[in-house]
Amino acid sequence: MVIALDAMGGDHAPEMVVRGAHIALKRFPKVHFQLFGDEGRIRPLLAKYKRLSGRASVHHTDEAVSGDAKPSQALRAGRRSSMRLAIDAVADGKADCIVSAGNTGALMAMAKFVFKTVPGIDRPAIASYFPTRRGESVMLDLGANVECDADNLVQFALLGDVFARTVLGLQQPVVGLLNVGSEELKGNDAVREAAARLRDTFSPLSFYGFVEGDDIAAGTVDVVVTDGFTGNVALKTAEGTVKLCVDFFRSAFRYSFLGRVGYLFARGALAKLRERLDPRRYNGAVFLGLQGIAVKSHGGADALGFANAIAVAVDMKANGFLDKIHDELARLHAHVASAEKPHSAAV
Amino acid sequence: MVIALDAMGGDHAPEMVVRGAHIALKRFPKVHFQLFGDEGRIRPLLAKYKRLSGRASVHHTDEAVSGDAKPSQALRAGRRSSMRLAIDAVADGKADCIVSAGNTGALMAMAKFVFKTVPGIDRPAIASYFPTRRGESVMLDLGANVECDADNLVQFALLGDVFARTVLGLQQPVVGLLNVGSEELKGNDAVREAAARLRDTFSPLSFYGFVEGDDIAAGTVDVVVTDGFTGNVALKTAEGTVKLCVDFFRSAFRYSFLGRVGYLFARGALAKLRERLDPRRYNGAVFLGLQGIAVKSHGGADALGFANAIAVAVDMKANGFLDKIHDELARLHAHVASAEKPHSAAV
Repeated sequence: MVIALDAMGGDHAPEMVVRGAHIALKRFPKVHFQLFGDEGRIRPLLAKYKRLSGRASVHHTDEAVSGDAKPSQALRAGRRSSMRLAIDAVADGKADCIVSAGNTGALMAMAKFVFKTVPGIDRPAIASYFPTRRGESVMLDLGANVECDADNLVQFALLGDVFARTVLGLQQPVVGLLNVGSEELKGNDAVREAAARLRDTFSPLSFYGFVEGDDIAAGTVDVVVTDGFTGNVALKTAEGTVKLCVDFFRSAFRYSFLGRVGYLFARGALAKLRERLDPRRYNGAVFLGLQGIAVKSHGGADALGFANAIAVAVDMKANGFLDKIHDELARLHAHVASAEKPHSAAV
Repeated sequence: MVIALDAMGGDHAPEMVVRGAHIALKRFPKVHFQLFGDEGRIRPLLAKYKRLSGRASVHHTDEAVSGDAKPSQALRAGRRSSMRLAIDAVADGKADCIVSAGNTGALMAMAKFVFKTVPGIDRPAIASYFPTRRGESVMLDLGANVECDADNLVQFALLGDVFARTVLGLQQPVVGLLNVGSEELKGNDAVREAAARLRDTFSPLSFYGFVEGDDIAAGTVDVVVTDGFTGNVALKTAEGTVKLCVDFFRSAFRYSFLGRVGYLFARGALAKLRERLDPRRYNGAVFLGLQGIAVKSHGGADALGFANAIAVAVDMKANGFLDKIHDELARLHAHVASAEKPHSAAV
């Protein structure tokens, strides 16, 4: 398996990209990396890791997409950027997937332009998975589409369902639509119409109905579907709240003598807890609905976080994600067609 | 001070309402309660609390707004409901504020109909305050307005600013607009236009700019302004995430011997932590922009939570909230008028 890496994307690039590849290589010793970026900066870093050097090629370019570049601008002017060349490598069949910690909007615009969307999907979505009280769930869209209509939401439900089947390994994922209440009349037109179509008895999805914000962490459903504005806010709100809890937790132990004694005994358990809540474990947002595998790492990720983003890409490729997306969508379309419900044609 | 209570609203009403009033009375021994609802059920409960009995009157009605009633239906058919009579008591000058754990939509519709909105405010908003890493912040709207335009958001910013000044006691609250990124171009038309107007040098508000989901718990700003859909999801997401963290903390201690030993030492510190994160402490959402004080308790609140909602109402009344809203809005309008910026007229 060959993984194309945008070596220049992210706050701590290219250092953390190279170190992230080094960490990922321990877990996936048979992968090969293509590093796109400034050779003069990448080579010295690579020299530190002998094994990685043997499994990585460097593809020089002077250009990189800046963090504040507009997507349209990056698309137009960034044809020789490290990000674009890495994407092109996948499109040309020279690599299997691409991972970048760079500008999200630019990455989405380029990936969409180069890979194209899957037939039947109007707009790709950004998805990520995260820990819940019942295991792991996936949420989409996380910011690719600020405004969404019912068609988009229904398509996101299908994409999320397939992602949960193929990457989280669930047999029959339960899909919920994020709303401000569970009653049918709640919410805006888009969520109400999308829910009506997903509730359709002919829909092959296991649709739970509306879920609310507190259902996300509760793990009420396996797939949380929402527009990109709400999803982005919800995901970041959850991340911020975890930080708040960890802060409060730490100060609870620090500010009393018995608390400090208790900490000494419990530190093994607490280290495990920290690991469980470590956002780096869940680094790696996926672009769903494209005919190519692109994974976006947090811009501020460190090497361990970036290695996890690489792992997401490897899992997707190893599990034949794209083929399954195609198969599942074909199956779903056939199902809808056989039901001969004209108003469900968009499903 | 006289507080009108909807004794029939909430999952555990009327028990938790009566017990909540009993708890609140310990903190505010001079208040008087008016309990609206089924006298046959309220009297026996009241009999358990001697001091409360001496400071409470019961106002019988057979009718109550059901949890699933549509706002329009409650407004039309609920004129003799416990919720409506409690609101009317405030409008008639017989009580100073009203607290209910009943149907949010119905409460908002009735309070809006009876109290009317403050001149200059198109739509009232639901606000609540919550703990952050830097103290406490307030967020609005939390669900009253599923779709909001720039006018609404600008008005919410003003309401939130006044709330933070008068109830949280801040001199110059910093206001942020919730978005999916901090750059000016991010988000939808409504947030971009609202931000442009709040950024206006003539605006007397201390406007921070856009904030993201993780800024909520970080306490980056004192007032987080957003539409009711996003705000509702964000608040509930944060609540759900706190529960998840508490769950994880608990299991970290439980599943190892040393963890359990550590717990024995640290349990005092952990009890304090639990208290700090206890959602009941932050129970009590306020309807801002109305010419009357109405506080909404969580429907599932217990007596302690309901007592906190009563405390929010008492604080608002005691701090002359409504007068200050009027004064501040007049001051803000004068400021804008003197700046003679026609496009800011809506401020």
